[in-house]
Amino acid sequence: MISVVLLGAGNVATHLYKAFIKSKDVSVSQWYNRNLEPIQTYKNEVEVVDDINKLKKADVYIIAVSDDAISNLSSQLPFENRLVVHTSGSVGIYELDKKNERGVFYPLQTFSKDAEVDFKQVPICIEVIKKTNLKTLKSLSEALGSESHKVNTEQRKALHLAAVFVNNFTNQLYRIAHEITESKGVEFNILKPLILETAKKVQDLSPYMAQTGPAKRNDKKTIRKHLKLLENQHHKDIYELLTTSIQKTHGRKKL
Amino acid sequence: MISVVLLGAGNVATHLYKAFIKSKDVSVSQWYNRNLEPIQTYKNEVEVVDDINKLKKADVYIIAVSDDAISNLSSQLPFENRLVVHTSGSVGIYELDKKNERGVFYPLQTFSKDAEVDFKQVPICIEVIKKTNLKTLKSLSEALGSESHKVNTEQRKALHLAAVFVNNFTNQLYRIAHEITESKGVEFNILKPLILETAKKVQDLSPYMAQTGPAKRNDKKTIRKHLKLLENQHHKDIYELLTTSIQKTHGRKKL
Repeated sequence: MISVVLLGAGNVATHLYKAFIKSKDVSVSQWYNRNLEPIQTYKNEVEVVDDINKLKKADVYIIAVSDDAISNLSSQLPFENRLVVHTSGSVGIYELDKKNERGVFYPLQTFSKDAEVDFKQVPICIEVIKKTNLKTLKSLSEALGSESHKVNTEQRKALHLAAVFVNNFTNQLYRIAHEITESKGVEFNILKPLILETAKKVQDLSPYMAQTGPAKRNDKKTIRKHLKLLENQHHKDIYELLTTSIQKTHGRKKL
Repeated sequence: MISVVLLGAGNVATHLYKAFIKSKDVSVSQWYNRNLEPIQTYKNEVEVVDDINKLKKADVYIIAVSDDAISNLSSQLPFENRLVVHTSGSVGIYELDKKNERGVFYPLQTFSKDAEVDFKQVPICIEVIKKTNLKTLKSLSEALGSESHKVNTEQRKALHLAAVFVNNFTNQLYRIAHEITESKGVEFNILKPLILETAKKVQDLSPYMAQTGPAKRNDKKTIRKHLKLLENQHHKDIYELLTTSIQKTHGRKKL
């Protein structure tokens, strides 16, 4: 049984909490937040605290707060030589105060406030300084049903950056598609099966092998038609840049 | 029972053929291609022909060839006043020779050569000139298990353009993520659950509502870190353009 103290009340903290209390291998001994209001609802299941000096002894302290607040919170902890981890993709492990043993427990997934998270679909990227802490964090992943991956800081930062491409930027392309269809009074819904299939395809095939379409074929006529159809100059720029990107990848000449 | 003559031997033609022969409501009377070689394998199940003058009477003639060849093939057909459709997203209905009744039967999905297609996940965009042909094409969709959508030429072209954003361009973002992770020796695999979740999220939520991340939060520190990490100037350009795009959408200031 791994005992955990959670710090923070955002999406990641809340989803971790919900997953931890479901696991028979984890006990959440306390949930800390500097203001109790967002975690008040859980006070009958777990000890909620807003006084950092009242934190009890636990196997792992998980700091799940905004990137900018991690370092400061870690130095406020009123104890030493315990395992303290943060959950960020882009904050270095050394930004945690060195009075404690340090680690990273970064769940690489998109979390929505309301949607339930299936941690089987959440890879956890683990980083430690002291090897003995690796086992604890791996067990913690296992207790969630997650796959864990040992990565170094540089690799974690690369994953965080890549995640922006496959999540935020991809979602923005969906958004542009939504604008294009809406402007012609046609349902965005019709694109949903294609959106899903595009994501499914690269589960088995590399993105290189999965590529199709006018840019890859260097089908100038269709590219020209599309650029003419686009009314928004900003969307035209994105079309051109990504078309060029595909052509570079697939060894074709530029537009 | 709807009788169909298929023309062409590419991905769309082949997947339509395989779906049609499984349907009890469709009979493929002939499969035409100007060269028999690619369809030779099917000669024991269906009449394969390379002589356009040998085409028999059928309810629908489906031209599934490359965009540039559609118009020409339609005018070579040795009959009149029958229903002839093409399967393209970007070719106008009037590019079909007017000696026949014209229609469009555009399956909006990505087709790979080898992967089997589940037509329940393939919306069919239908366009006709004569209303009576709508029923035939709707029944043909139904026979495949597909949802059909009546759209006009302008709407179909918008969908085709939007499909480039959610399929080809999205796939290129996956490719860039692949390059980023590979350059740091970390597995692209770790991103696959996030890729899938991003696509699933917009099945229920609008892309606007689904957006998260540094661009939306206007988190300049993380954006700066990411731009510094990107070694490829072309990837930097894409990062900046899509970040600006998200900020425009979400009403934040520019980078």
